[in-house]
Amino acid sequence: MNLILLEDKDFITPDNALITGRRFEHLINVNRIKQGDTLICGKINDRIGQGFVSEITDVSCSMEVTFNQDPPAPIPLILVLALPRPKMLRRIIQAVTSMGVKQIYLINSWRVEKSFWQSPFLEPENLRDQMILGLEQARDTLMPQIHLKRFFKDFIQNDFPRINADSTSIVAHPKTGNICPCSVENEITLVIGPEGGFIDYEIQSFKEHGAKICHIGSRILRVETAVPYLISRLVSNVV
Amino acid sequence: MNLILLEDKDFITPDNALITGRRFEHLINVNRIKQGDTLICGKINDRIGQGFVSEITDVSCSMEVTFNQDPPAPIPLILVLALPRPKMLRRIIQAVTSMGVKQIYLINSWRVEKSFWQSPFLEPENLRDQMILGLEQARDTLMPQIHLKRFFKDFIQNDFPRINADSTSIVAHPKTGNICPCSVENEITLVIGPEGGFIDYEIQSFKEHGAKICHIGSRILRVETAVPYLISRLVSNVV
Repeated sequence: MNLILLEDKDFITPDNALITGRRFEHLINVNRIKQGDTLICGKINDRIGQGFVSEITDVSCSMEVTFNQDPPAPIPLILVLALPRPKMLRRIIQAVTSMGVKQIYLINSWRVEKSFWQSPFLEPENLRDQMILGLEQARDTLMPQIHLKRFFKDFIQNDFPRINADSTSIVAHPKTGNICPCSVENEITLVIGPEGGFIDYEIQSFKEHGAKICHIGSRILRVETAVPYLISRLVSNVV
Repeated sequence: MNLILLEDKDFITPDNALITGRRFEHLINVNRIKQGDTLICGKINDRIGQGFVSEITDVSCSMEVTFNQDPPAPIPLILVLALPRPKMLRRIIQAVTSMGVKQIYLINSWRVEKSFWQSPFLEPENLRDQMILGLEQARDTLMPQIHLKRFFKDFIQNDFPRINADSTSIVAHPKTGNICPCSVENEITLVIGPEGGFIDYEIQSFKEHGAKICHIGSRILRVETAVPYLISRLVSNVV
């Protein structure tokens, strides 16, 4: 945990927070904090600062907190991802949150297994848990927004035109002649298909709505490798 | 499985292979192959081609194979990685193999837990299994080499100078003023520390041996996210 992310309910007074539960256990067992330590902390969707550990009990830790710094800037990239299998989804949500992505669309596609949409990992609380882990990792406080788009046609007709209007949209797809660009200056919408790829109809739909279809060479990467690989390629500003 | 990776023992004649075990199960249950299909296959450390499925039994599949294509080029990057925790190690080996890395040094560092070196995942056969999965994913046949370097001092004094002689060495480290370069032309040695980072003595040792210490911004990424992120940043040629 590189930053302790505080929620409203953690505050006893505006300058005093009480940490319990998972974060407390982690601070004791992994970070091995002691009374008198100063830790980096932040308020969800708010500023970053320091927490002075004033007391540690068996189940909690009290901190005197001050906030004096903005969280790192978001990266100018919207991620549209065909819903991956639940175990991979959790890791991807953590990873893209840590990289500073703030808008995530999880969409349906022909090759997304229907059962994935029933996964308990898609419950708002469970998605939120993964985002919190990503923010704690990256010392960020700004919670991403995740949009669940269960119907491809509805997404492509009603959401995608709006998203695409202000950004360069790139669909990563192996079967095309265009090489994926590097270091794009505009805001980017990065679209990544399911394992097995988008079907022709889906690729055609993205094209008709103004997206560029691009490949990254003959190697086919797993979605969880392709996501950080492509984000890094498209956004060269340091995260 | 995007390519069926064949070993010498799979060949009945030079043009006929018999697939059993894990690969057979995967072909039937995931790829759902049928007699008469033509599949992409390759020989380990050799060429790529097609396999015509001539017969399927309950436990095996026979293929008539021809090889007519070179595997994709390796990327010009050597990876030096502080040994990660075993579960993460498996995913990272798969991922970097799929990205075309051919030389991987797993090294010790002050913050690597000693128990990680006892993991059964470090057995040559288990490492090989992960590399095979990475090659199958990326349609590659060239097996990477993994070097286990249990002693940091020995590595830095005896291995690193040789590795560094022909390449630009970059150590990813948050506490420095240098921003990590993009699209380096030379061969690159990318050095990534453990969770928690290298200690000062280790950073100093890399510096003394000619490595550049570079950061990628204020966000701290998990090793498994940082690896594809940094490889993509340093090597802009498509994988």
